[in-house]
Amino acid sequence: MDTILRIDVGAAGGPKATPTPVGDYAGLGGRGLTSAIVATEVPADAHPLGPENKLVIAPGLLSGTAASMSGRISVGCKSPLTGGIKEANAGGQAGQLLARLGYAAIVLEGARQGDDLYVVRISKDGVTITADPSVRRATNYQLMDKFLGEYDKTGAMIAIGTAGEMGYGNSTVSITDMEGRPTRHAGRGGVGAVMGSKGIKAILIDAKGAKSRKPADPEAFKAASKAWVEGLEKHPVTGEGLPAYGTNVLTNVINEAGGLPTRNFATGQFEGASKISGETQAELEVARGGSATHGCHRGCIIQCSGTFVNKDGRYVTKQPEYETVWAHGANCGIDDLDVIAELDRLDDDYGLDTIEMGATIAVAMEAGVAKFGDGQAAIELVREVGKGTPLGRILGSGTATTARVYGIEHAPCVKGQAMPAYDPRAVKGIGVTYATSPMGADHTAGYAVATNILKVGGDVDPLKAEGQAELSKNLQIATAAVDATGMCLFIAFAVLDQPDTFQALVDLLNAYYGWNLDAAGVAAYGSKILAFERDFNQRAGFTSADDRLPRYFKREPLAPHNVTFDVSDAELDSVFG
Amino acid sequence: MDTILRIDVGAAGGPKATPTPVGDYAGLGGRGLTSAIVATEVPADAHPLGPENKLVIAPGLLSGTAASMSGRISVGCKSPLTGGIKEANAGGQAGQLLARLGYAAIVLEGARQGDDLYVVRISKDGVTITADPSVRRATNYQLMDKFLGEYDKTGAMIAIGTAGEMGYGNSTVSITDMEGRPTRHAGRGGVGAVMGSKGIKAILIDAKGAKSRKPADPEAFKAASKAWVEGLEKHPVTGEGLPAYGTNVLTNVINEAGGLPTRNFATGQFEGASKISGETQAELEVARGGSATHGCHRGCIIQCSGTFVNKDGRYVTKQPEYETVWAHGANCGIDDLDVIAELDRLDDDYGLDTIEMGATIAVAMEAGVAKFGDGQAAIELVREVGKGTPLGRILGSGTATTARVYGIEHAPCVKGQAMPAYDPRAVKGIGVTYATSPMGADHTAGYAVATNILKVGGDVDPLKAEGQAELSKNLQIATAAVDATGMCLFIAFAVLDQPDTFQALVDLLNAYYGWNLDAAGVAAYGSKILAFERDFNQRAGFTSADDRLPRYFKREPLAPHNVTFDVSDAELDSVFG
Repeated sequence: MDTILRIDVGAAGGPKATPTPVGDYAGLGGRGLTSAIVATEVPADAHPLGPENKLVIAPGLLSGTAASMSGRISVGCKSPLTGGIKEANAGGQAGQLLARLGYAAIVLEGARQGDDLYVVRISKDGVTITADPSVRRATNYQLMDKFLGEYDKTGAMIAIGTAGEMGYGNSTVSITDMEGRPTRHAGRGGVGAVMGSKGIKAILIDAKGAKSRKPADPEAFKAASKAWVEGLEKHPVTGEGLPAYGTNVLTNVINEAGGLPTRNFATGQFEGASKISGETQAELEVARGGSATHGCHRGCIIQCSGTFVNKDGRYVTKQPEYETVWAHGANCGIDDLDVIAELDRLDDDYGLDTIEMGATIAVAMEAGVAKFGDGQAAIELVREVGKGTPLGRILGSGTATTARVYGIEHAPCVKGQAMPAYDPRAVKGIGVTYATSPMGADHTAGYAVATNILKVGGDVDPLKAEGQAELSKNLQIATAAVDATGMCLFIAFAVLDQPDTFQALVDLLNAYYGWNLDAAGVAAYGSKILAFERDFNQRAGFTSADDRLPRYFKREPLAPHNVTFDVSDAELDSVFG
Repeated sequence: MDTILRIDVGAAGGPKATPTPVGDYAGLGGRGLTSAIVATEVPADAHPLGPENKLVIAPGLLSGTAASMSGRISVGCKSPLTGGIKEANAGGQAGQLLARLGYAAIVLEGARQGDDLYVVRISKDGVTITADPSVRRATNYQLMDKFLGEYDKTGAMIAIGTAGEMGYGNSTVSITDMEGRPTRHAGRGGVGAVMGSKGIKAILIDAKGAKSRKPADPEAFKAASKAWVEGLEKHPVTGEGLPAYGTNVLTNVINEAGGLPTRNFATGQFEGASKISGETQAELEVARGGSATHGCHRGCIIQCSGTFVNKDGRYVTKQPEYETVWAHGANCGIDDLDVIAELDRLDDDYGLDTIEMGATIAVAMEAGVAKFGDGQAAIELVREVGKGTPLGRILGSGTATTARVYGIEHAPCVKGQAMPAYDPRAVKGIGVTYATSPMGADHTAGYAVATNILKVGGDVDPLKAEGQAELSKNLQIATAAVDATGMCLFIAFAVLDQPDTFQALVDLLNAYYGWNLDAAGVAAYGSKILAFERDFNQRAGFTSADDRLPRYFKREPLAPHNVTFDVSDAELDSVFG
């Protein structure tokens, strides 16, 4: 983890990889490292798809160690979707393996020459980069079919599908899972388009022979690791809810709370919720011979994922996440899990963020392009996106652009990025996060749903404005720090509720790096990352006017609670004021 | 001019018109009035197509008087294209007639109920508003065919074509000319979509029996009026160049200067320039039985327009302006005046801004949607826009959105609005105006081309950064004042060069209103308007980062002078600093 692999895509004769020392970026990982590099090296007025932007791919501080749950990988750049700084992160195998190969980050930079597409191969023996005409317009699963034999289930692939290649504002960087499938995605903000703009289609990681990473204090690390696992296993969310039903355990919960955005955020409850709930989904998966409890990377003990198979028992996709089930389900008025799974598969295949895609289809439905509830129409729309027809290009450009093109006010976006699966009028804490996160509307940036609805880390009434700004602020700071560690964000449920589990995480870092972090130090670390991000955004032209929800959330009440978003501008500005 | 006609489109039973006193807005006209009302009454975070936006239509301070050239009308709102404040102005008959009927402005406001489209009829006897299903999806010329018998050539129609009805970012408000044709357009910024969002398709003005406006001091007004006309007639631009060749006299001039943006701003000279020049155009028009010297409204003595007929002598469109000839010609690599005239006709018919449309097609050509130089393809693309196909909707959303949808960096836009017909690298003064005008890239907001190239109002080297900020600043202030008077901007050539003609304009205002304005007062008046606009934009989230050209203008040199845009950020910020 002492090396940053810089790939200059503008080098004479084709992209050239140069290992460079981590230097001043030492001690940063994951989101901390991606945001530091982007804020330091990318001019704030760079075009996201132009030569001055960079794509930074970074494992976390604890990735590649023996610590459980440390498999997240961060992908950062100036976002084609928001125009601000972006860190999107994903699970899968790549984070662990890159870390074990000694890379703190891969940076794709420079001005692409010509329009060849390249495949990068990384192993303990070094890096090769080859132009490969056969990958043009390949989908992620096609890339898997082509390269799985090479990267192997013990390795990993980082790739873009057709969406990234076509430069879409909605385009992911995919990361393969334990089966070598491209089911994990750095989804938000169009990071795939930046990879595509650099002409890099896939990065194949062969980790054979890579050394595992050694802590500074092995004994302390081992002890912390044990406490860490025990803490995660004893918390009801990480030890029971997520393993049993995955993230989709939330459909019934959020619907019950009246905060499940339905038909493009027109109402807060969906009459078809029970048909697409996690409970129904798990039952269906198991009955068909799939699986409802599975991990996305080695070292995961929460096992929130699963395998969705069709009625003939054939693999369709990984278990769709709550956000996906919401986006393609309730938000489009669709109550059919098979349709949702097919959409999830298409999204993964083309390299599309399911949240943005579902939100976009809902806007298109409001515009009359298709009818709410029409699952086959939704599938056809996503296929258009994959094909790159004019309609597909509109939808692939994201929710805000689609609304603009169809002249629709109801674009549920902040900073150009679509809101996820919680209506901010009924879950006001998450509304504060949507509004103020440097990332645009993003639930993972400060998951106030935990405290508003799940009563984890305290209890703040979701329907009242009071206390939401403070809640969101603290969560955003903590999350930025967690996103630097490479730890899956779901550990936060246990960390927020159990002081000893929080301490175990701090101990892991201290034992590994020989640091003396305490709680205040963790907060300072998170705040430093946010400061990088806010500074970049400010230089890119963002102001407090961008830290707002669209006006209609303040004007149009949401059923069943008939609430508007009434957190004041002053409170929103207090988050980072 | 003491009355503001407010039309509440959300009233029970359909839109309701209420004449209200001009009140605190007294003394403001044209752009001064539209910007004051928008800045005061529209929340800066309103959605441009939402219920809180307003469309303000205002004649100028001198409109409807006997003063020559006073026929401009301003249309203001929060812009769907830029997200900032917008004033777009046009010639034609409506400004004079509304003023004579006593209206300082028409304000369309409120939340549209249902989706009926309405026609407003205004005469000395009052206002009627009627739902009219037959106007749905009517083009501007179809509206003319339908209503010309009613509004008559002595009256006027203010209308939206299909573009405004469909909510496009590129959509105009059309104003009829002396022949009753919809050839004059408040073109920029998508003002037509705001009119469409209010459900008003057309406003028919019957000015029969309207009183002409009486000055406070008739004798002084008459004297000033005489000096005014003499001044305009003796200046070579307003007395000779514009009458003979219209605005298209500029094609050869700007091409010679190396500042004619060609093929999406890739180079500064077009090999086909002479084939589309004003000289060639005038010759063709006259040879075919059209006209090269004609006015757009009664009281015009510059007569910069004309009539373009086809080879059979049949009317196609008014004489295409330089900006149109450039946008659809050089910028798309098209050197055929008949193609350009057909495109101009289609733009007027659908209600599309020719600058934005041509810039958009060039971006689409760079994206591979059509080939540069293919005139028939360009015509087909504009027809798609009129039909509202997905491709048409992309293009109708404007240049910046089209570039975004196709993943193209080369979007020659500021604040989301496409640059007009002067490359800012070779005419740096206009580059400062593009960057800093509250309107987005707009040549009319501070026409530094006059001083950079035509040597009117001084001489500032177009290729050097020095002096451009000061030049643009002074011109922007003067222009804001002129835009409030209702005077055609072309009077500025004479006003800038001839102190007595400037004084004649001031005398007209003083004699009419009983004021004691001097030069400093005129500047203060212009500055006040800009302050309204800058304040609105700031509240809408604009910062100095928005007062910049796209980065590639600073990176990619323009042939033949091989210059980049090198006016510093500090100089740009000094314009309004």
